Amino acid sequence: MKILVFDTTLRDGSQGAGIAFTVEDKIKIAKALDSFGISYIEGGWPGSNPKDELFFSQMKKLGSLGLKNAKLTAFSSTRRKGSKASEDESLRAIVKSGVKTACIFGKSWDLHVKYALKTTNEENLKMIFESVAFLKSKKLEVIFDAEHYFDGYRNNKEYALETVRTAVDGGVDTICLCETNGGMLPSDIQSIVRKTISLFPKVRFGIHAHNDSGCAVANSIAAVEEGCIMVQGTINGIGERCGNANLCSIIPALEFKRNYECISKKNVKKLSELSRYVDEIANLVTDDSRPYVGNNAFAHKAGMHVSAIERNPETYEHINPALVGNERRILISDLSGKSNIVSKFNEMKRGIKDTDDGNASEKIKKVIDIVKEKENNGYQYENADASFFLITKKALGSFKPFFSLVCYRLIVEKDSDGNIVSEAAVKLDVRGKEEHTVAEGNGPVDALSNCLRKALIKYYPDIKNVFLMDFKVRVVNSTANTAAKVRVLIESSDASRNWGTIGVSENIIDASWQALSDSIEYKLLRSKK
Amino acid sequence: MKILVFDTTLRDGSQGAGIAFTVEDKIKIAKALDSFGISYIEGGWPGSNPKDELFFSQMKKLGSLGLKNAKLTAFSSTRRKGSKASEDESLRAIVKSGVKTACIFGKSWDLHVKYALKTTNEENLKMIFESVAFLKSKKLEVIFDAEHYFDGYRNNKEYALETVRTAVDGGVDTICLCETNGGMLPSDIQSIVRKTISLFPKVRFGIHAHNDSGCAVANSIAAVEEGCIMVQGTINGIGERCGNANLCSIIPALEFKRNYECISKKNVKKLSELSRYVDEIANLVTDDSRPYVGNNAFAHKAGMHVSAIERNPETYEHINPALVGNERRILISDLSGKSNIVSKFNEMKRGIKDTDDGNASEKIKKVIDIVKEKENNGYQYENADASFFLITKKALGSFKPFFSLVCYRLIVEKDSDGNIVSEAAVKLDVRGKEEHTVAEGNGPVDALSNCLRKALIKYYPDIKNVFLMDFKVRVVNSTANTAAKVRVLIESSDASRNWGTIGVSENIIDASWQALSDSIEYKLLRSKK
Repeated sequence: MKILVFDTTLRDGSQGAGIAFTVEDKIKIAKALDSFGISYIEGGWPGSNPKDELFFSQMKKLGSLGLKNAKLTAFSSTRRKGSKASEDESLRAIVKSGVKTACIFGKSWDLHVKYALKTTNEENLKMIFESVAFLKSKKLEVIFDAEHYFDGYRNNKEYALETVRTAVDGGVDTICLCETNGGMLPSDIQSIVRKTISLFPKVRFGIHAHNDSGCAVANSIAAVEEGCIMVQGTINGIGERCGNANLCSIIPALEFKRNYECISKKNVKKLSELSRYVDEIANLVTDDSRPYVGNNAFAHKAGMHVSAIERNPETYEHINPALVGNERRILISDLSGKSNIVSKFNEMKRGIKDTDDGNASEKIKKVIDIVKEKENNGYQYENADASFFLITKKALGSFKPFFSLVCYRLIVEKDSDGNIVSEAAVKLDVRGKEEHTVAEGNGPVDALSNCLRKALIKYYPDIKNVFLMDFKVRVVNSTANTAAKVRVLIESSDASRNWGTIGVSENIIDASWQALSDSIEYKLLRSKK
Repeated sequence: MKILVFDTTLRDGSQGAGIAFTVEDKIKIAKALDSFGISYIEGGWPGSNPKDELFFSQMKKLGSLGLKNAKLTAFSSTRRKGSKASEDESLRAIVKSGVKTACIFGKSWDLHVKYALKTTNEENLKMIFESVAFLKSKKLEVIFDAEHYFDGYRNNKEYALETVRTAVDGGVDTICLCETNGGMLPSDIQSIVRKTISLFPKVRFGIHAHNDSGCAVANSIAAVEEGCIMVQGTINGIGERCGNANLCSIIPALEFKRNYECISKKNVKKLSELSRYVDEIANLVTDDSRPYVGNNAFAHKAGMHVSAIERNPETYEHINPALVGNERRILISDLSGKSNIVSKFNEMKRGIKDTDDGNASEKIKKVIDIVKEKENNGYQYENADASFFLITKKALGSFKPFFSLVCYRLIVEKDSDGNIVSEAAVKLDVRGKEEHTVAEGNGPVDALSNCLRKALIKYYPDIKNVFLMDFKVRVVNSTANTAAKVRVLIESSDASRNWGTIGVSENIIDASWQALSDSIEYKLLRSKK
């Protein structure tokens, strides 16, 4: 059975705290959603702000509203109270935008009619009827978002049902039941959807869920199981408060666990890529623990799990990661056994290649010994894949350094006016040549990083694009009195991918230097290939 | 009806990527969970690693295993194949640990018996029976975690049920049905739990869910609705891959939406605080969009939502934020933290006393203004009580500085032999006298700290006993391109008590200096009293 996926990343998703898409961002995301196979793409509310208006006019210029398969959809509310639908600016803006599909929301909860609209229940019904009928008269496909339908149903069932009936009478194509406040649990959705659909057996229903109880995904799936044929949600669940229903979790569940057809099993393979792409455009820190698409979604840390997985992946994986374009990762930590290290090493070997020349088990042992020694000294590789890659190469003798440190000096001075200057001077050996550079920075790590770039950029122009994404420091052994070691974790990025490196030292500056230079070495190693 | 909340943050949660609790961290979290009202706290697997062994022996030293109300629980697997339960080191470690409750997991999925255990179905049943019976013979309460119960039920129902029956025959107290791979959807849980419980009407069942399909919270709630009386999960849902079931979402749903009793409605008010506390100890970036407890969980953008909410909060809030210790935020005119600040301030005032002299509300307003400005600049006082105490005193004008900074200079040099020297020079004004000191240290923070002590010790000999316990650094605003600020949290101790201080700056050295000097000032203030 076909389920229509309705994406509202560009409309409801953009209400999320910290999200501010430009028109260009919106066009990029719309195209990515289209080629992924989404059925409806809600682009915005053309009657509410100039940015959304511009988005629709740009899409129109691209011809056929800029998309190959998906239906570009414009959003609005029902007409204002006490006016005519045909004269409502917001509804007219939808018609003017040229889209073939409109999604309009109206109130299904009498509490909202009273407190938000401050009008009568009768007028609200007229607003729904006339708005739907007006858009239908303009030959548009109309989806009616029944806002707060579930709270409304609980508080005044008859009225909530009346709003649905009114939209149907107006000629609506699909009624989307909205769980606007996000507080319902799946068994609530189950019973209310079941009863509602039984009263309107010929109407097409959809679900629009928010995540305030942490159940938006489950609520959406429950609604589909009860007969809804449309699911509204956003990529990565972005949206106001706790977010909207996350399509990245709903789509694979429907496709692989309930055998509905929504995107096509082939396209679902691009899901992880799409998730990361939207994060990148929204400039959000990626949540590694996201179901299906997260960096850790198939990451295994416990030693026992790893050895079982190598015998049969089904033992600890609910789905083959390749189906959603993700991959298995083996984490290295103090909880991990030998099997983790061996498996990680094998994973790395595929990237190294040049070491496949004979006594593999001897080499594995060598790596294990070095990793164990490093771990005893406070290193921890589960978030430092790039450093792990480098020590593996080094342990196997297949690593040719791009540069080596001779010495550095770092000065941080705060004067009596409170001004702070950070200056680093670094002496490197680069391909046998001494490079002595000095640089200032916003803090000592930035100053060291600037020195490193200054010295290396003429040899390796690729490092220009590398930037520091995140920086974490933690004391490793926090027992009193002894000199504690600090562990620095740096996450770097070159826009196309991220990598993690680690440094450990009694000295935070030196630990940072280790993580910084690993980051650059890793980048150079990858650029070379 | 009473639902038993079983927290496994310290055991299963610690399998999460990037999480590495020290023994001290574990003790702190256990105490916080205990005072929050959790029924069972799973502390670790004493037979599997020395850190967990140390944790249990430390808890034992505290008397009654260190907790006031909760049952401290130790984890293990069933005995090894082909051996005796009474000789199994891991089971003996549980007994030796002194706990009164054990949680052991065994295989309920024949696929795992074959691929992970590599033994026969019969031997697995013996392992379950004998392990449960052995622990019962030692007078322990025994919870049996039926690992992969749901996958097992689907693939070989008879065998999965047989493992449950065997644990019951062994004398188990509670059977916890584990959704180990996390791929089930709520309707799967609903039907399997319903059928299972109907076959064992007298047995107490629990649920342990993972979040690989994004449904761990919904799955746990569904299991309780079907009759499970125990819920296992972690604070903030930390755990391997996509995490465990998030107790911070499950507890309020059960308490407020289904009227079960699990923590007490009164204690649920500390939920947001507990969530943030665990994030800080785990050194994790807090997810603002978390249901109930997240910073954005009740955040509303200006406009229609806000005005409706001011007329009636129910219009856009599924629950009163105060019930879970959270608060409404209006994103445009940001009122965040006010009630927190007021309550924190009142809490502190008891420690200050000398300011209770009249216009209290004027003073509170003054503190609020300063704290809000600090918070806008990245300060966060949840784990920096001592810094909060100081700014409160400063805001009220009742603070007389013990010293003030004139300037400092810090040098870190690494020479070509790899030797590192950190030297700090600090100029202070101490009671009107200039003190200029220079000192080396194990790293820059230690060097600055040594300077500070050297300058102050003759004036204030009490500072001799202060030492740095923990040091954490985090980038505050990690969006690319702009200069990121770092937040340094320092925990200090003088053996009789610990206190936390904070510094924020673009420069890690200056942020460290702020936290260091706050730490010493706080110590001096307390010594004076």
